[in-house]
Amino acid sequence: MDCGQAATRRSAMKLFTRFLLALLAAMPAFASADELRGTGNLGLVIERSAGSVLVVDTTQRKAIGRVEGLGDLSHASVVFSPDERYGYVFGRDGGLTKVDLLTNTIAKRVVQAGNSIGGAISDDGELIAVSNYEPGGVRVFDARTLDPVANIPAIGANGKESKTVGLVDLPGRRFAWALYDAGEIWVADLSDVKSPSVIKLADVGKLPYDGNVTPDGRHYLAGLFGEDGVVHVDTWQQPLKAERILNGYGRGEEPLSVYKMPHLEGWAAVGDKLLLPAVGHHELIAVDLRSFTEAGRVATHGQPVFAVARPDGRQVWVNFAHPLNDTVQVIDTESLKVIHSLTPGPAVLHMEFTPRGNEVWVSVRDADRIDVYDAATFAKKGEIPAQKPSGIFFTARATRVGQ
Amino acid sequence: MDCGQAATRRSAMKLFTRFLLALLAAMPAFASADELRGTGNLGLVIERSAGSVLVVDTTQRKAIGRVEGLGDLSHASVVFSPDERYGYVFGRDGGLTKVDLLTNTIAKRVVQAGNSIGGAISDDGELIAVSNYEPGGVRVFDARTLDPVANIPAIGANGKESKTVGLVDLPGRRFAWALYDAGEIWVADLSDVKSPSVIKLADVGKLPYDGNVTPDGRHYLAGLFGEDGVVHVDTWQQPLKAERILNGYGRGEEPLSVYKMPHLEGWAAVGDKLLLPAVGHHELIAVDLRSFTEAGRVATHGQPVFAVARPDGRQVWVNFAHPLNDTVQVIDTESLKVIHSLTPGPAVLHMEFTPRGNEVWVSVRDADRIDVYDAATFAKKGEIPAQKPSGIFFTARATRVGQ
Repeated sequence: MDCGQAATRRSAMKLFTRFLLALLAAMPAFASADELRGTGNLGLVIERSAGSVLVVDTTQRKAIGRVEGLGDLSHASVVFSPDERYGYVFGRDGGLTKVDLLTNTIAKRVVQAGNSIGGAISDDGELIAVSNYEPGGVRVFDARTLDPVANIPAIGANGKESKTVGLVDLPGRRFAWALYDAGEIWVADLSDVKSPSVIKLADVGKLPYDGNVTPDGRHYLAGLFGEDGVVHVDTWQQPLKAERILNGYGRGEEPLSVYKMPHLEGWAAVGDKLLLPAVGHHELIAVDLRSFTEAGRVATHGQPVFAVARPDGRQVWVNFAHPLNDTVQVIDTESLKVIHSLTPGPAVLHMEFTPRGNEVWVSVRDADRIDVYDAATFAKKGEIPAQKPSGIFFTARATRVGQ
Repeated sequence: MDCGQAATRRSAMKLFTRFLLALLAAMPAFASADELRGTGNLGLVIERSAGSVLVVDTTQRKAIGRVEGLGDLSHASVVFSPDERYGYVFGRDGGLTKVDLLTNTIAKRVVQAGNSIGGAISDDGELIAVSNYEPGGVRVFDARTLDPVANIPAIGANGKESKTVGLVDLPGRRFAWALYDAGEIWVADLSDVKSPSVIKLADVGKLPYDGNVTPDGRHYLAGLFGEDGVVHVDTWQQPLKAERILNGYGRGEEPLSVYKMPHLEGWAAVGDKLLLPAVGHHELIAVDLRSFTEAGRVATHGQPVFAVARPDGRQVWVNFAHPLNDTVQVIDTESLKVIHSLTPGPAVLHMEFTPRGNEVWVSVRDADRIDVYDAATFAKKGEIPAQKPSGIFFTARATRVGQ
């Protein structure tokens, strides 16, 4: 074979390769999105830097779609519609995006504020509330259309607009949140969305930086940045009152950057205990849910970020702050001992259990991967490519109070 | 107008009416079943005497389909696939039917025994286990195909085949059940379905007639028909052991018919308490979940059948045995007091809350109706026609342990 022939063949090969690549590019990356399917085993994974979300199927352990154009997704979180078809993604830039998990499209998107931090869906699935930094306050939207239906500015007793944090839903079409600047906790009843009825608890403590409610929707807790403790509101009591618990919660003498504060979504409720990441320490604090006093501590590998309970409450999986964030530890909730450690990889950011707890999904951001582990044996059962994944949210959240 | 003209008009009217009726009969009773939709807000309602199930939509508060041909549905119960597309209906006649809630069709049906009483789905959604009376034992099926994959005869220490009752799933691909005739409780690990590993607790008490597990999948309780008490197995302890609790549970001196025994699916788990229907008495017994001792009693309108907790655990709705079965009472779980009574109608058989507890669906068998109540205000929000409805099962059960 002479050089001319070889060159011709090389050109032909090149052309053919190009053709194959073009063909591949034209093929859909994911399966057809219009087939009839249930939605109970779906979820969304935040791809923070790309501003996109992956639609995942927990039965197949794979991604089935990607939806792009969601803006700034740092600290993004998701709640789901009762039919588990739509996910509402709360972005950092005030973006609120309704994603259709069946068609992998954006059903609706609004930019409702300049800077916001999470949201919640009312127990009847009709209202979406968003917690805003800039401007402060809470804005409420029709879950179907994303039309604004209420705006509750957060003017504290001090007369100033406040950032709102720790927004959660409560039973009875209510929401609770904390006012960061004003040091207050508000509980709003939106049965009549045109005239919300708001109970305001003032002077709860300095700079509540996050809040959360126990899985039964009863006990609201807010962490204080300006003081060393936690505020507790038992929402079943009349009248409502805020009580300080866990003085000496762990912030200690040296003030820490607010970005190092563990978010309170990071706690685990197990049986009659809560396991809270201690602030600034390498430990979890166990809190007795009857007395709201400390019931023990667990020494951990690093500063805990998320403590996630297996749905049966027998074990809690914990990840850690930088630079110890390649590791996950598993705690036995009876003995409060670490019973297993694993090293999924660089920057483990989040963990989410399948609804009945047989598997746990772990986002390993800097490996561009989600790992799926068997929750009983700790064996790795799957890997899913993802672009710098952070939060993982399964549709079963639609069935939970305080989601 | 003479009589001849009037007669002609009457005939014409009759014909027209017949034509209208024929037209109505030809119209589909329910909306198109092939459109894209989520499944998180669906459910099945048992129509016992018709041998059919209604497919219901909890957001629209209406029936969207009916599936017929399911055999004898007395005491029928349902579990759901993880994707919440399929319901597995366990009939009394040994029938196991996989119903497709998106197409309103039977995806698969097998008659797996002569007489059976409920079943369960493994935590990974792959196995369906059925509890049989005739022959006894537990049979296990592939959830996808309904092909048999395991058969576990219930031969007790006495060497005889036993009826099995109180079958539930436990975390880690396990199931638990009781042997009625032999007086035993078995816990089976089906991680390797080809060789199930079974732990057998013998001599737990006489004639366990039903069993259930707490919502965290930890505490298995069986009621005894042959003795006045309950058996408790803490499945987190090693080795497993059965312990008697609640001696004097209520059966009293006079033996009652087995058909009057309250089924243990009828309990409510609320916070750190269980509320159990007392046997043969007009009361609920509160059991402390730390000590497993009695923590109080609530006097009720009649002999309780189902005590169903609102998902936040703050209230429990109770229905009653014949002839007081037209009434429902609502109990406050903090004060253990009846705070509301309502009379939906003749033969209230079952109640099911929407997953986050904003509404409760009540089957009123002899009124051929399902009523939907607002769980906060007790106002009736809807009525759904149904043929002698009994059990109501929403797809959110797919997210729960021990479903």
